Amino acid sequence: MSSEPQQATSQEQLDREAALTDEVLASFSDAPNPRLKEILQSLTRHIHEFAREVRLTEDEWTAGMEFLAEVGRRTDEKRQEFILLSDTLGLSMQTITINNQAVGNATEATVFGPFFVEGSPEIQQGGDISFGAVGEPSWVEGYVRGTDGNPIPGAKIEVWEADDDGMYDVQYDDDRMSARAHIYSDDEGHYQFWALTPVPYSIPADGPAGDMLRNAGRSPMRAPHLHFMVTADGYRTLVTHIFVAGGDYLDSDTVFGVKDSLVKDFVTQDAGTPTPDGREVEGTWTKADFDIILPPAES
Amino acid sequence: MSSEPQQATSQEQLDREAALTDEVLASFSDAPNPRLKEILQSLTRHIHEFAREVRLTEDEWTAGMEFLAEVGRRTDEKRQEFILLSDTLGLSMQTITINNQAVGNATEATVFGPFFVEGSPEIQQGGDISFGAVGEPSWVEGYVRGTDGNPIPGAKIEVWEADDDGMYDVQYDDDRMSARAHIYSDDEGHYQFWALTPVPYSIPADGPAGDMLRNAGRSPMRAPHLHFMVTADGYRTLVTHIFVAGGDYLDSDTVFGVKDSLVKDFVTQDAGTPTPDGREVEGTWTKADFDIILPPAES
Repeated sequence: MSSEPQQATSQEQLDREAALTDEVLASFSDAPNPRLKEILQSLTRHIHEFAREVRLTEDEWTAGMEFLAEVGRRTDEKRQEFILLSDTLGLSMQTITINNQAVGNATEATVFGPFFVEGSPEIQQGGDISFGAVGEPSWVEGYVRGTDGNPIPGAKIEVWEADDDGMYDVQYDDDRMSARAHIYSDDEGHYQFWALTPVPYSIPADGPAGDMLRNAGRSPMRAPHLHFMVTADGYRTLVTHIFVAGGDYLDSDTVFGVKDSLVKDFVTQDAGTPTPDGREVEGTWTKADFDIILPPAES
Repeated sequence: MSSEPQQATSQEQLDREAALTDEVLASFSDAPNPRLKEILQSLTRHIHEFAREVRLTEDEWTAGMEFLAEVGRRTDEKRQEFILLSDTLGLSMQTITINNQAVGNATEATVFGPFFVEGSPEIQQGGDISFGAVGEPSWVEGYVRGTDGNPIPGAKIEVWEADDDGMYDVQYDDDRMSARAHIYSDDEGHYQFWALTPVPYSIPADGPAGDMLRNAGRSPMRAPHLHFMVTADGYRTLVTHIFVAGGDYLDSDTVFGVKDSLVKDFVTQDAGTPTPDGREVEGTWTKADFDIILPPAES
């Protein structure tokens, strides 16, 4: 089970390896579902090419199998370790990019992440998504419009974020639901709510995906952001974030989610500055504008 | 979250996707271990190319993440589901092929499989590996030699196989150890033992790897074979099988392990034919010759 040095690989050996790949590809030739056949054949070709390119050793293969098994074992409803691995290898962002091609001036998409929860509370205009989560208050507002410039009333805007300790509600053990809510755009397509000024945080790094990042000398930190998912009949659903201009890790976001167009000013307001809705805030707060532009559904 | 038809993919879009891959590759540029860096960068490039090539949809990505997580959850010490997946995608055989390059007339390697167990019982020359496992008796013998033709005495020959029901001992719940043993070659490099004539069997197909095979219209069957692992000081360790000439599934072995040089005649002997060691056998038995040639360790 020793390995030849790469430079000694003969053409005969390379042909033998290529023939094996062809044999595996042929085994899928009778797959009844043409899409499954396409996916399995492409995947087979690429994992074989990977193994041949790096001259994967048997010990490395064994370690890889054990790593992937551990990623699977760590995955459950509360801990999406395979999604974290996909995120940190940029596969999630690549899938987002492939499936959300730019349409004119439409708002760009970014990663969904592992922390979305169905059934967040509804808030009214000017409501507060924090529900007890601690952090600097932030007034966020904007318009939802189509690429034609027309306002979209009744768009469902789901927002979620980490608290000031960099933790999402689902990362606590007490079943809290906080720092997440949904709101509907009004007749002019306008929305406004109180949130928390986003802070940087580490993705859950105590599992195999975190080990991979550490071993590769990479940071597990995400640039500060507020998640949005916007759905409206007749429009393409948008999954995105807004990032805090000037925030840490904008250039090294560990899931590769940052796009320039999504970096927004969260303008700090001195303590005592009157708030848009007359709410009394102790200390500073911030203010961010985010206009959302949705392309038609079939684009 | 809709997708553009593939033919509509613009150069601008392709550039955006390629730029994302480059960003992920760059994130590994400071990895302290150059080998880990090489592996992670190559893996990243290939999984991104796969996603781009098939225009992976978000639903397909989600299904893939769930599939891999389930493969991991099904993997434990007794059930090597990730190895089964690797085997059925030909990745295991490709890794074997890369790491066991042909050296002159040396015996070819094939897949290790998930059923090897450390600490099998030792048998003497002419001993029986079955230890209660049921099947047609088979007398297997041969010589262990170096590529220079010199005999290798004291080579450790580990053998294991399925019983007549196509089951390995570890697939039963009663902790039996049967149809596996090890023997040492004698002063002339010779070995001989009783085993069972191998029969075809299905790999464990009640997990996600089995689902993949079914959905792809592939058989889960392995061609009939007897496993060997041969170790000797100063020689490359050989992991291989011998296959039964004329057996089923030689052309469609689900883990791609068959090599022509490893297909051997298991010659059927009529009931009553005298056995090599005078043992009395009821009914038919078979006889197979397998000469093993090991290359030097550093080849």
